[in-house]
Order: sequence, then C-alpha cells, then structure tokens
Amino acid sequence: MPKIVLIPVTEFDRVRAAATEQCEKLALVSDMCRANALASVKRAGSGHLGSSFSSLDIVTMLYYSEMNTARLGVDHADRDIYFSSKGHDVPGLYAVLFSLGILPKEKFIKLRRLQGTYGHPDVSTPGMEANTGSLGMGISKAKGMALAKSLRQRRGRIFVMTGDGELQEGQIYEALQTAVHQKIHNLTVIIDHNKVQSDKPVSEIVDLGDLAAKLRAFGWHVARCDGHDFRQLENVFAQFRAVADKPKILIADTVKGRGVSFMEHPTALRSGGGIYRWHSGAPDDQAYTDAHEEIVKRINNRLARAGMSPLMFEEIPSEEKGPGSVSREYVADAFGEALAEIAAEREDLVVLDADLSADCRLRAFELKYPERFIENGIAEQDMVSMAGGLALQGLLPVVNTFASFLAARANEQIYNNACEQTRIIYVCHYAGLVPAGPGQSHQSIRDISLFGALPNFVIIEPCNAAETRMALKYCVHEAKENCVLRLVIGPSPRVVSLPPDYQFTPGRGAVLTEGEDGVLFAYGPVMLHEALLAAEVLREERFNLKVVNMPWLNRIDHQWLEEVIGLCQKVCVLDDHSPVGGLGDVILDALAGSGLLAARRFKKFGVEGYPACGTPQEALRYHGLDGATLACRLRSERDLKCNGE
Amino acid sequence: MPKIVLIPVTEFDRVRAAATEQCEKLALVSDMCRANALASVKRAGSGHLGSSFSSLDIVTMLYYSEMNTARLGVDHADRDIYFSSKGHDVPGLYAVLFSLGILPKEKFIKLRRLQGTYGHPDVSTPGMEANTGSLGMGISKAKGMALAKSLRQRRGRIFVMTGDGELQEGQIYEALQTAVHQKIHNLTVIIDHNKVQSDKPVSEIVDLGDLAAKLRAFGWHVARCDGHDFRQLENVFAQFRAVADKPKILIADTVKGRGVSFMEHPTALRSGGGIYRWHSGAPDDQAYTDAHEEIVKRINNRLARAGMSPLMFEEIPSEEKGPGSVSREYVADAFGEALAEIAAEREDLVVLDADLSADCRLRAFELKYPERFIENGIAEQDMVSMAGGLALQGLLPVVNTFASFLAARANEQIYNNACEQTRIIYVCHYAGLVPAGPGQSHQSIRDISLFGALPNFVIIEPCNAAETRMALKYCVHEAKENCVLRLVIGPSPRVVSLPPDYQFTPGRGAVLTEGEDGVLFAYGPVMLHEALLAAEVLREERFNLKVVNMPWLNRIDHQWLEEVIGLCQKVCVLDDHSPVGGLGDVILDALAGSGLLAARRFKKFGVEGYPACGTPQEALRYHGLDGATLACRLRSERDLKCNGE
Repeated sequence: MPKIVLIPVTEFDRVRAAATEQCEKLALVSDMCRANALASVKRAGSGHLGSSFSSLDIVTMLYYSEMNTARLGVDHADRDIYFSSKGHDVPGLYAVLFSLGILPKEKFIKLRRLQGTYGHPDVSTPGMEANTGSLGMGISKAKGMALAKSLRQRRGRIFVMTGDGELQEGQIYEALQTAVHQKIHNLTVIIDHNKVQSDKPVSEIVDLGDLAAKLRAFGWHVARCDGHDFRQLENVFAQFRAVADKPKILIADTVKGRGVSFMEHPTALRSGGGIYRWHSGAPDDQAYTDAHEEIVKRINNRLARAGMSPLMFEEIPSEEKGPGSVSREYVADAFGEALAEIAAEREDLVVLDADLSADCRLRAFELKYPERFIENGIAEQDMVSMAGGLALQGLLPVVNTFASFLAARANEQIYNNACEQTRIIYVCHYAGLVPAGPGQSHQSIRDISLFGALPNFVIIEPCNAAETRMALKYCVHEAKENCVLRLVIGPSPRVVSLPPDYQFTPGRGAVLTEGEDGVLFAYGPVMLHEALLAAEVLREERFNLKVVNMPWLNRIDHQWLEEVIGLCQKVCVLDDHSPVGGLGDVILDALAGSGLLAARRFKKFGVEGYPACGTPQEALRYHGLDGATLACRLRSERDLKCNGE
Repeated sequence: MPKIVLIPVTEFDRVRAAATEQCEKLALVSDMCRANALASVKRAGSGHLGSSFSSLDIVTMLYYSEMNTARLGVDHADRDIYFSSKGHDVPGLYAVLFSLGILPKEKFIKLRRLQGTYGHPDVSTPGMEANTGSLGMGISKAKGMALAKSLRQRRGRIFVMTGDGELQEGQIYEALQTAVHQKIHNLTVIIDHNKVQSDKPVSEIVDLGDLAAKLRAFGWHVARCDGHDFRQLENVFAQFRAVADKPKILIADTVKGRGVSFMEHPTALRSGGGIYRWHSGAPDDQAYTDAHEEIVKRINNRLARAGMSPLMFEEIPSEEKGPGSVSREYVADAFGEALAEIAAEREDLVVLDADLSADCRLRAFELKYPERFIENGIAEQDMVSMAGGLALQGLLPVVNTFASFLAARANEQIYNNACEQTRIIYVCHYAGLVPAGPGQSHQSIRDISLFGALPNFVIIEPCNAAETRMALKYCVHEAKENCVLRLVIGPSPRVVSLPPDYQFTPGRGAVLTEGEDGVLFAYGPVMLHEALLAAEVLREERFNLKVVNMPWLNRIDHQWLEEVIGLCQKVCVLDDHSPVGGLGDVILDALAGSGLLAARRFKKFGVEGYPACGTPQEALRYHGLDGATLACRLRSERDLKCNGE
C-alpha cells in the first residue's frame, strides 16, 4: 500500500487567498479536491472515482462561486441547497466540503467507515442535504425542498445533480412533468452527462436520444455546455438566474474520469476494449500512484504559473480494517457460470439486466447468447413488467439487479406479474448487510419481507458455490412457482462445507455442526461464517451449538424441522435481514403451527435498525452479528452474562 | 332497480352480416357494446363507464377491422394482441369480446362477481392478454410480448391502450425510451386521450404539455386523430402498417363518456361544476334508463337507415348479492374531516395526493388549504420523494393514495425517506380485501408486510370513525416516528362500538366481547364485523370468544397482551391481509418472546392466495373469512367438525 497523503485545508485557504483569476482558482481547487477524493477512495478500498471526477468541476464551481452555502453555513435556513441524486459521486463532494472546512478531516479520511462518511450521501454527514444512491429520486426531493422553502418563506435555491444513465429511471420523468405543472421554478438540475454508465456507454445501454429536445418537450428551460469549462458554467448559471418562470436544467457535457488521463472515458473505453473500469472500486497501488502524481503535477504547474509554492501534504494514518476472513469463492460467480451452462439446454430462458451485467455476473451469458440477453438500463420497473410480457408468451425470464432495487422499486410490478400465474425467476444480487461500504441505499435487509406475502413464491439463498448451482437448477428445472434467488455479492468469508451426501430438497437444510445445547438456523455465506465462528467460541465453553444451513427462506419441511431441533431447548435464527419478515418469522410460524415450540426458548437475531456503513466487520459488529458477539448473545440466552453487559 | 336488458350475440351477428358500409357498421357495433357495457356496470353496481365509452370506438375498430384475433382465436400463437394498460375501461372490452362470442354470456353479465369477470383485466378471463389496473405497466409488458413473438418466430402485432392521466406514471417513459433502443418495432400504443382523470381534467391535475412533441422526442412514430372517427382511425392504422422501423403511438382525441350526452366530459364537467362524476361507479336508476334509451335510440335510427329492424333484447336475470350488512359510517370520511380540522392548528402539515382526492376524502382540506394541498397526479414515486424533500425542510407531509399503489410502487422511496430520519405520515387508503370488485390490482393484502421491516414506523388501522380521529391525532401530535394509517375505503359493515372509557394507547387495543374459551384479535371495520358475527354464532354454542380490536399492527404492549389473553388457551388473529407479515406474525412474535405462548394454541386467519374478486360477501366467503365460516374454523380449532368438513 503506497503512502496516502492529504492536501490539508490550510492549502485550500492559501489558494483561496491568492490573487489568482477566478476560473484558474476554481481549476486549482477542483484538482486539489480530485487528489483528496482519490486518496480517500484508495484508503477506503472502494468508491466511485469516474463520476466524482466528471462532476467535480461543477460541484467546485457551485460551492466556491455560485452558491451562498459556504458563506451562510450548511444549517442556515436561507442557504442554497445542493445534492447529487446519483450519489455515487459523493467522494468528490466530500472533498469539496472538506476543503471548505464543512466536513471535518477525521470524517473525510474515513470514507465508507463506521463513524466516517457513507458510500452514498446520508443527511447525518455535515453538508449532506439528502440521502441518495438509489437512482432517480433527486429531482422529486428537490421539488419538495423548493416548495417547502416558498411555504416557509425561506430564501435559497435548490441545485440537484443527476447522472445521464440515471435518466433511464422513470421517476425522473414524473418529476420533470410535475415540476413544471406545480410551478416549481426555484430549481436547477444539472445533468453530469459523462456518457458512461456502470461500465459501458449510455448510448449502448439505453440511448437517451435527443436529450435537449426531450427536456424541452417537458417544458424546462434547457442549456448545454462543457461541464469542465468554468467560464461556460458561470455564463449558464448567470443566464439561469434570469429565468424565473421555469425550472432550469443544464446538460453538462463531461468526461468520466476527468483529470486522470488513463481514467478519462474516451481513453479508458479504448484500453478496456469497450468496458470502462473506473466507475467503482479503488485503483490498485500503481494506478493510484500514477493518478495522484498526474493530478499533483498539474496542480503544481498551476501554482507555479501563479507564482505560488508547490503543494504541501499531510500523511493520512492508515487504519486497521480488522481481520475479516475472505475466501476466493463468490457465489455470484457460480451463479453466472451455471446460468450460461443451463441456457444451453433451455432455449426458453431469457436474461434481463438493469445495467449491472458485470456485478450480476451476466457477462458470460451476455456474450454467449446476445439474442436472449435483454439489457434494460436503469429502469427496473420496465424490466420487471417486460419480463411479465415475456413470460405471458411462454418464455422463462431471469430478472437481475441488486436486491434493494428489485424487491422494493419494482415490487408492484412483481405482484402484477405474479397475479398472471406465470413463472419468473427474480435474482436479488447484493442481498444482505455486507458489503456495508455503499451504505443504506444498497444494503438489502428488507427484500425477504417484500416478497414474503406473495403467494406462489419460493425464496432461496444458497450458502456456497455448489449450493448456488443447485439452487439455480432447481429454480429453472424443478420449481413450479416464481422463484427468488437471493445472492451475497461479496467474497464468501469461508467456503461453507456441506455434507458430502447433501441433497438440495425443498424445505430442508443441512446441519453444519452437531450440538445439543442449542440450534442456530442461518443462511448465506456471510451469516453462516459468523454462526460457525460463534459455535467455535461456544464449544470451548462446552456449549455445543448446532449450526444449520437453511437456504429455504419461506418453506419449511416440518418433519425435517422436528428432526433437526431434536432435543435442543433453545432455537435461534440468524437473519441476514431485518428480524421482521425474515427466516426467523417463518421458522417461528412453523414451530407454533406444529406445536414444536412448546417450552422451548426461541430467539431471532437480525439486522436491527438501519444498516450500518463500514467494513464488513464494522457493520457486523455494530449490529451484534459478528461471531464473537453472537457467541456472547447466545451465551446470555443461556443466562450467562456477556463481558461488559 | 330498472329491468336490465342485454343485446344478445345474435343481434351482433345480424349487424355483421348486413350489407352496411363498414364505418357505419362499426359505429353500430360500438354503440351496441356501449349499451351492453352500461347494462353490465349497472348490474354490477360499480365499474368505469367514462373511459369504457371513450375507448370503445377504438377497441371495436381493432377487433372488428384491424386485428386478426377474432378470426384466428384468442389462443392462436400468431394472433394480434390487444390489451388496455389502464384496465378500468374493461367493461367496454368485455362487451366487444362478448359481441364476438369470445367471452361467454354467463361471465359477461357477472361483472365484478365471483365466477364472473374482474373489475380490472385478469388473464384467467377469455380474451384477456395481461393483468392491468395498476397504471403505467402496459407498454413495458407489450414490449416483452413483442420481443417474445420475434424470439419464438410468432406472427401477430401488439396493440396496447393507455390513458392520458396514466402518462403521469414514470414507468411509461422508461418503456418509451427502452422500446426505441431495444428496437421493439412490432408495437402500437394508443393513447385514449379523453382529457379527464378520476374526476378532473388532466390539464388541472398534471398537464402533459405538448404531448406529440414529447413522444417524438422519445423517438416514436407519432400520429394523432379523432378517436371516434372510424375513417380517421382506419387511415392511421393503415399508415402504421407501413412504418417498420419504429414503435408507433396514436394520440386518439376522445370524449370521456362518449355516447351518452350527459356523461360526455365537456357537458358533464359543466354540470358537475368542474368535477366529472362518471369515471367510476354505476349510474343511478334514472341515469341508467336515460343513458340506455339514448344509446338504443341512436342504434335503432342507424338500423332504420340501413333498412334493418330494431334491436331485440334479452333480459338479464338480476342476481342475489347476499346480505352484506352496511352502516352509514365511512372511516375515510372521519379521516378527511379530522384532517381538515387538525390542519387549522398545524401550519406545518401539508397534504399530498395522487389523483384520488375524492376517494381519499381530501377535498375538504384541498378547498380549505389550497396552498398546502399538493396534487401530484398519478406519480406515486415522485409524490413520496417530494414528501421526503418537504420533510427535510421541516414540514409534516401526509401522503395519500391507495394502499397497493403507495406501499408497493413507492416502497423504495419510502425507505429512502425513512433513512433520513424525518417524519412522514403515509395514509394507505383502500386497504384490505374489500371492496373486492376492482380486483387484485386494487385489493391491498400485502401493505403491512411491505412496511413491516422498516424501523421507526408505526402501523395503525382504526376500527371506526372515532378511532380514526384518535389515530390521526396520534400520528400528527404524538408519534415520534413515521406513521402508516391504514384505512378501509368502503362503508363499515357495522359501527364497531368501543368501550366508553377507551383510550387510544400505543400497543394496547380494546376488548369488544368478553370470553374465556378463546381470544380473537382483529382490526378494521370489515374484519371486526366478521369476528363479532363469529362470536355471536359461537356464543349460541356456549363457546365464548373474546374479540379484541387491535389497531396497532406492529406494536404490542406485552403487559396488556398478557392481561387480555388471561386464561384463554386459544389465541387467534384475523388479518385483513395476507397471513404472512400481518398482525398475526407480530402477535406470535410477542407471545414467543414473552413466553406467553407456552402450551397455548395459536392460529392465524388471513387472506390466503390472491384476493378474490366479487361482492364483499363473495370475497370474504371465498377466503373463509366471513363470520359463519370463521365460526366454523374457530370451532374446528376446538376440535369439532365443520359442516361439510
């Protein structure tokens, strides 16, 4: 890991105080923020650089020149309000807020860490005006803020940034339409038109057509300029100030990865063979060093031209990330491989994607069966209803995106499809609490409950690669109902080993460790790892915990349940989900229905409250779901005290 | 009730066989279908006439002239496919399918009845190609069907009808955008542009602006014509047949209520003082008679001009609707009155609506506080996120629409708002199984589960007008968290009487009937009525059932629970909801957590499977939730047999 250095606030003060021309100054500050954003992402080990860099010049210009926010303070009722609807460009915004002294250093350097800053905006962070990260909501929220300001006679303007891929979300057009009708004129939208989505050009995923014509047709005042040219930006905002009878929208032509030659999208797409690799994730050590040097060199040249001395840095202390066991296994990889295999035998199988082909491991299928791969862009509702139409015509759609976007945003469309009694496989990727870096918008701890009340649905979460293949085969070949396949996106902390004779049978799981003092049902690689850790701790205290892998989240074989519980008087369930509406409730229901509960003690463990942002270990520990704390909680279940309790 | 008559299929055959000019023939058939649609709605006691009439000429033209469906049969793989995305115009479509012999008479005359036809399209009905009724999904589904046809080498075109108010839903624009990018060219959309939404002009709710320009900007081939002029329609469709490189969309200018002078919107809006009253609901006897006479007179004049004899009718047997007790009370009325009252003391209270102001009883507030009433049109996601922005600026938003549209479609937006730790009141109107006439798209039996896993939410359903006022006051004045107010939309079967000393206290309900043989927890006027009926039946058998009103659907006061259960060994819960994720699970969880379950027997009653369409009595009976069947099921809980079991 190379030494990570920060440009301290004092350096920004020095530049602000300098008698440099304004646009030159903005360019300097923006690059200094680039360097700091880069450092924070490298330190975090993840984060979105591509769109932080494409939007940074605009954000800098807003806070340093256009808005009154820095002057009045971020809590002033009359402040101008800025937030990003896409949200993943927040490392750049944090860097700007840090440079202005709004975001304290100790928070800024702890990107995606507990007590630090969230991977996507959260209002608990100084300077953050809205929670975003799930796409398409920003303009609607801004409308509410603008109307509230007028109702409460508050001054200040509302600025909201959107992505261009984000313009595939239907809510955007609801908001464009209602804003005009509701006469919300104190609103400026800036489209960071960097031309690239998660890893491909917008024009390839779902082209936006004549964007300016579209926006004008919705009745907005539309302008377009180079989003990296401060003079052009100033002119546009000056022009906008004169437009009082319409909401305003700027199409800012930007470059994804702007400011680091090899991350800029024209170059990066070429070198990546059409795939852009700098949307998310931290650069490796070499790329970080090269990028940092390139930015700093440019800054120092500017400083020299202005007759100023070179940048001073301070080193950021590197931080212990905690042990966090990691194996080479990704259940998502197994899913992607199995999907491409199965597709060979099943010509009726079609795959739908919402611009997450790589994350959902669909690329193998996409390349092998392009005619059966349906890229739908960031339009989950349209994707799900389209799947409904495909199913009505006798095909078997496999619908993919992140769990939180699929189960929540397209919930009514899923219900509507279900009412048609067709069969669809919904794959909820990125299910559960971890990775916890991206924050609440991405962590999915409600999806089981969102599918739970749908009749004729089976919900499955496999614990390892082998079980993932079994689960997908079951969903495609054997299931008679709609299927939900819930998959952890990160690496398995350990490869959970299933019994050699394990059969994937509806309603029946597998005992992983024998024990008679208590039974703990869990599922998925993340929570089973913690459950097994807890069992190891407890075994040393002669408390033998039976850990059971239960991949069937809404189906219980009562006979099996009775056998598994055996003589255990303590029955516990560990959910990678809220304790409401998860496996815990399903097992309790089965116990009560079959009289198995009787005098036994029953306990649910799950993700209480809103999911914490941080490393996997931080988040698990925060929610009391790491092996050690679980052991302690299970211990207290047998009426011993926990340390510190 | 006037005599209700049907124009039999033989009459349609006679007209089809006649040597009349085609457009004249279409006009005749369309009016004959109008008369039959009117009769079916009058007989059902509810249904949507306004848009059935505005779309009927187009639907007639499609099935009688443009499409191959009637010729090939509705199950032929190469058939042309038509369906309505808005779906509430289905009485008109049923009439056309009946006229063609596709929909059997015994089903057609049983609109909104069990074993008849659904209030909104359902694929189990002959000729129905998709389930619709929740708005905005149709074009997406049509895309799937069109793509499936090409993947499966099937012939036939896809036609889908949308409303104009429906164009406020964002999913429409997702589909418009993806259809062009995905090159779905075998797709024709027809906008029934009748200018009126649920009871006001589209231009007043959320204006669509320059619609043609909008649609062109999305890259569609756009045409516009008079949707009641068959010659113009034929020309447009002929022109569309020649367009192979784009999806096609027709803006059909129509008149809501077309064909009945006093229902046609220009007239009806005038006579209604700006409010259109023929969108939904059956006409009274006089209006029915006048409308029917007007249509029949026009038909007979046409027949005479064609030298044909007047229409023959057959009488439709009127049908027993079952007892179905009804009081004068509507909890929704109490909500609307209390809302307007409370708003006087609370200037921070703002009300949001999604084009259901009358149904949600918001009109009193709307007229009294226009500046604090936010009409958002049929754009639930935008409405909810806008409420989030209002809350961030310190206002208290009260968000209103039907439960199934709010809890499901805007679920992710609700979660996003919740993550900001603001406070919003979500009012889920039309919650539960009944009224069951509109069908699955409108019946809400999953909303408790959709909110259940959200931390910091309290979910309340009041049982009568008085408790509704208490509940709203609690949500506004006392609650510290987000609130969900779940309201039945229909009349209360009886006015549930609460104890004179009843206090509305978090986690505590009220005992309605004393008993020691078993306790049944229920909520809301509909299910409590059935619970009380069951108790009355059982009391005659010396089984004393304690019926408890429990308005707190996710909060239990354990001490109260223990007191209420007392010595009862049987604990039952009746949910106006799926048995998964409802009050039953919450009470079971409380019982298991507090050791109260022990040797007691626990039983959940709820809406199993998908909700049935029919009269309230039919639906309740179908799900085994009517008082008599409940008594029987409770009896079998004490190990006696049910009749016929």
